[in-house]
Amino acid sequence: MNEQTGSVYSARLARVMERMKALGLRQLLVADPDSVWYLTGYYNEPMERMMVFCVRSDGRHIFCLNRLFPAPDAPWEQLWFTDTDDAVGMLAAVLEPGQPVGIDKIWPARFLLPLMEKAPGCRPVLASDCVDRCRACKDSAEQALMRAASRINDQVMEEAARFFHEGVTEREAARFIEDRYAALGCSGPSFPTIVSFGANGADPHHEPDDTPLAPGDSIVIDMGCRKDRYCSDMTRTYFWKEASGEARAVHDLVRRANEQAEALVKPGIPLCALDKAARDLIAGAGYGEFFTHRLGHFIGQRDHEQGDVSSANTALAEPGMIFSIEPGIYLPGRFGVRIEDLVLVTETGCEVLNRVDKHCRVLG
Amino acid sequence: MNEQTGSVYSARLARVMERMKALGLRQLLVADPDSVWYLTGYYNEPMERMMVFCVRSDGRHIFCLNRLFPAPDAPWEQLWFTDTDDAVGMLAAVLEPGQPVGIDKIWPARFLLPLMEKAPGCRPVLASDCVDRCRACKDSAEQALMRAASRINDQVMEEAARFFHEGVTEREAARFIEDRYAALGCSGPSFPTIVSFGANGADPHHEPDDTPLAPGDSIVIDMGCRKDRYCSDMTRTYFWKEASGEARAVHDLVRRANEQAEALVKPGIPLCALDKAARDLIAGAGYGEFFTHRLGHFIGQRDHEQGDVSSANTALAEPGMIFSIEPGIYLPGRFGVRIEDLVLVTETGCEVLNRVDKHCRVLG
Repeated sequence: MNEQTGSVYSARLARVMERMKALGLRQLLVADPDSVWYLTGYYNEPMERMMVFCVRSDGRHIFCLNRLFPAPDAPWEQLWFTDTDDAVGMLAAVLEPGQPVGIDKIWPARFLLPLMEKAPGCRPVLASDCVDRCRACKDSAEQALMRAASRINDQVMEEAARFFHEGVTEREAARFIEDRYAALGCSGPSFPTIVSFGANGADPHHEPDDTPLAPGDSIVIDMGCRKDRYCSDMTRTYFWKEASGEARAVHDLVRRANEQAEALVKPGIPLCALDKAARDLIAGAGYGEFFTHRLGHFIGQRDHEQGDVSSANTALAEPGMIFSIEPGIYLPGRFGVRIEDLVLVTETGCEVLNRVDKHCRVLG
Repeated sequence: MNEQTGSVYSARLARVMERMKALGLRQLLVADPDSVWYLTGYYNEPMERMMVFCVRSDGRHIFCLNRLFPAPDAPWEQLWFTDTDDAVGMLAAVLEPGQPVGIDKIWPARFLLPLMEKAPGCRPVLASDCVDRCRACKDSAEQALMRAASRINDQVMEEAARFFHEGVTEREAARFIEDRYAALGCSGPSFPTIVSFGANGADPHHEPDDTPLAPGDSIVIDMGCRKDRYCSDMTRTYFWKEASGEARAVHDLVRRANEQAEALVKPGIPLCALDKAARDLIAGAGYGEFFTHRLGHFIGQRDHEQGDVSSANTALAEPGMIFSIEPGIYLPGRFGVRIEDLVLVTETGCEVLNRVDKHCRVLG
């Protein structure tokens, strides 16, 4: 680890420890591999084995690792165990007795229940928010990576728009997109690519199948890549050869809902107010019941991270947050339209990370 | 659900309820999506949302599902919630008060800790073994699917052996194997395919890279497919153009360790005795320190399921169990050899699910 990247991790740890202090927590078990990487630069996928990074208020953090894992290049104490050791017991032994212990939301019962037996004085407290709320606000290194991933996504979306041709199947188009990601140096898509033709687009999570493209079809393309650990995610909806009057009107309505919400993004606005702005516009035009999901989700190392843009989330936007704005209208048996960008909250408003034009476009 | 498949699920549920009875448990929360499918035929990947199938000793089982999930075609009560509902509170309300509640080992703290608050009289008990021990013993429907997946794996291994050529890279070979799985109707590999040339083979979990095949290289191929939900997994080690005397001797030793362990498999033998037989043979030849992992793992819907064949597992083999037998010797900086089959424990011994010849073979 060089000094410059080391200071990135120190800064992140300092933010987490501030949040721990606010909760009166002196020890926090971080288990989400993405969070461990975020705080230390060490990445490992432990599968069913235990991997914990214990953040301590005294700064003497501890890696708890299975001998089968690679060794971290990080300045923290290391507690190693094997498959035949009582790993949970060894972890319990290094906890500060009588002190509550913060638990990662993803930590499974296979470790949590035995830990509660072996460290009965350490009350478990769900506390991964200490890390997740830091992760929600991207620092400048992360912002640069998120921009780079969205640049690639913009490029591949434009290539995909040129790729469509009569009779091509959804599966072939999705494959084209994912092959382009690989060619551009991505580790893969950030989620399975969605390409939906015509009535298939009325299911927001349709999986690409052998449906061939036909005149009049709407084409919903929801796609993202993962590059250098960070994700992009964008949706555009095109039409093939022709678009009915209602299809055009629905597309314009969804675009305006997207733009209206994006125009409101700035520090201090409740995230639920963004959802409401888009939803009210769509409902006012009589399509409310066909906008069947929340407006957006947080994103970073994974396509879906903790936090969303929904009627239930009254949290306020903060500089550095990156989330999606993706209103949609789904007309069963007919067609669907969704338009999605990622936005980065700035000091004064927001930066939209996607640049592909959003106006109604008929291909072919 | 038709009657015949319904009776498969009823039989599985009856086995689980017997195990619950032995633990004095009247309610068990099953959360692993593969376990839910195993007991009900309903599959859904809930991601960060809650999905629970509550098995009750009175036979009145309850699905707890988010409105965003598809509806099950199964005869059990359904408790539906939305993203804005208190799903854990609704689950707590249908638990039998004052009774311990079995918890799935994979259930995350994000649900478990709030449930303990909302149902304080229901002591949580780690109890997914009730399902996992049933899943470990495959019924005849599952055995047929496991055989079919291994048939495909045998075929693709033979094709891979013919595919190798001077200069081909590990990545290209792994891609060939996974493309063949797709062409043969598999949903994918059961784990990322391992192809390791020469010194790369000394890392048991090496990821295929751009290393080109060169004369004298060992070729470790650890591969499996997933077909109709069930997995295969096999390893063979070949040599390219030539093999040194020591390489041949190590290969023969690993093969004999594999065969010796397989010859011992029958109901009633402790799983640790299988590990010991293979390990003693390898240690006796002076290579003990280079056999760095357990002998095998259970497999079924996933490549790694609960249960292993290791020095720590004193459980006895039972008819229907399927696990891997995969001794290996890893010589850092030089080469590695691993030979792996899946075995199905029968009433009198075992059926080896893989048929690809295991003798030392020099390709090219």
